[in-house]
Formats: sequence, C-alpha cells, structure tokens
Amino acid sequence: MNDAEAEIVAIEQAALQRWCAGDPSGFLEICDDDVAYFDPFLERRLDGLAALTAYYEPLRGKVFAERFEMLNPKVQRIGDAAVLTFNFVSYDGDEAVARWNCTEVFRRRGETWKLAQTHWSFTRGRRG
Amino acid sequence: MNDAEAEIVAIEQAALQRWCAGDPSGFLEICDDDVAYFDPFLERRLDGLAALTAYYEPLRGKVFAERFEMLNPKVQRIGDAAVLTFNFVSYDGDEAVARWNCTEVFRRRGETWKLAQTHWSFTRGRRG
Repeated sequence: MNDAEAEIVAIEQAALQRWCAGDPSGFLEICDDDVAYFDPFLERRLDGLAALTAYYEPLRGKVFAERFEMLNPKVQRIGDAAVLTFNFVSYDGDEAVARWNCTEVFRRRGETWKLAQTHWSFTRGRRG
Repeated sequence: MNDAEAEIVAIEQAALQRWCAGDPSGFLEICDDDVAYFDPFLERRLDGLAALTAYYEPLRGKVFAERFEMLNPKVQRIGDAAVLTFNFVSYDGDEAVARWNCTEVFRRRGETWKLAQTHWSFTRGRRG
C-alpha cells in the first residue's frame, strides 16, 4: 500500500473510530457537498451533505462499538478519485455484532480527500 | 445530464437488460480486470474479473426479470472516474419483486468505460 492509499485508509479509520464512539461528525467532516449515500435503513439514495447531516444528527451519542475491524481494505486510485472498499466487523466483547460491506469513493480536494459517495450494506444481507 | 453521464447510464442500462434476460456477460464485458465487487450473498468482497466470472457463470440462464426501473440515476464525474448511483426495482408483472441500492464506479479506458467497482445491496436490507 503506497502513501496515498495508506492516507485514505487512515482517514476512514479515524472517522470510524469517532462513529463507534457516538460521534457522526467524523464522517460529516470528510463528506463533500454532493455526497451520494446508501445504507440499509433508507428507502432510497440520500443526496448531499445537508441531507446526510440531518439524517446523522439524531444518532449522535447513540451508536457505540467496543472495537471494530476493517478487513482487507483495498484502494483503487483513478486520478483524483480513490475507491476504498472493505468489509467491516464491529464487536461487543468477543462477539461480532455487525458485519458490513463498505464502498467509499473519495475525491481529491486540495490537500485532502472528501467523500463523494458512501455505500454501507449488510454482509450477506443481514446483521450479526 | 451531459453526454458523458448519459453514456455511463446507457452502458449500465444495456448490461442490466442482458442481466435481466439471463445473460451475465453484459456485466462481465464491461468489468475491468481489478473490479471490486460486493453483493448481499457473499461473505466478503470479491476481487477481480476472474473471480467475478467464476461467480456469475453458474447464474447464466437463471436470472430473469420481466422489466426493471433504474430510479434517479446520478453520475459524479471525477476526471477519469465516474460514479453512478441509483436505486433499482425489478418487476414480475405489476409487482416489485426486488429493490436494490447500486453503486458502480467506472474508469475511463481509451474510448470506453470499465467497471472498477460494483456494490449491490438490498434497499432497506431486505428483498421485495
């Protein structure tokens, strides 16, 4: 993994760390204005940072995971885009409580990277 | 939607049309060698066209949908990358039989576009 790829993974890890401590701002701060967002709780794609902020704010202080693993992260660089894919497992004690598929598309913005697209789904279509 | 965006949507529509007629080659032919792939039936991300081909071939002639809709397609162009997101509904008669979230990341390859990443998941985490 080269430096740019490691940077992408580190950005995602930092946001996940905050998410698992009840803080959605880690993700909101790295989203671009036009972020396209999917998760398994929505009826359809959610468009834009304002809509995602409204969706995430009620979750503040409510989502916790004791620890998590980002499995087998892969970064595909396409010029000013970087596609990060990984499987995610969160744990309560030794028990895996959720397994996810995740795709994050980052766009280069000056000195940093911003999320243009996020797609979370349950691995094998279910939780746990 | 500009010409490049319309081209991306048309490429996806053509592959979906073949998929819904039992032909997985429509997708396999537009995948890049390093394609990263998620769907709700897998235990983890699937990597590369060879692995995806092995996974799709047994489905040949087995997947059919009478008709489908690509809802609200959005294309985000980032240089030589294009991120297509949409909700997908397939029908048997008038009944919606499956609802999906889909993210396709295309990479410019010469005169055409190839899939670097595909992520299919069930809308609201379930089928139907």
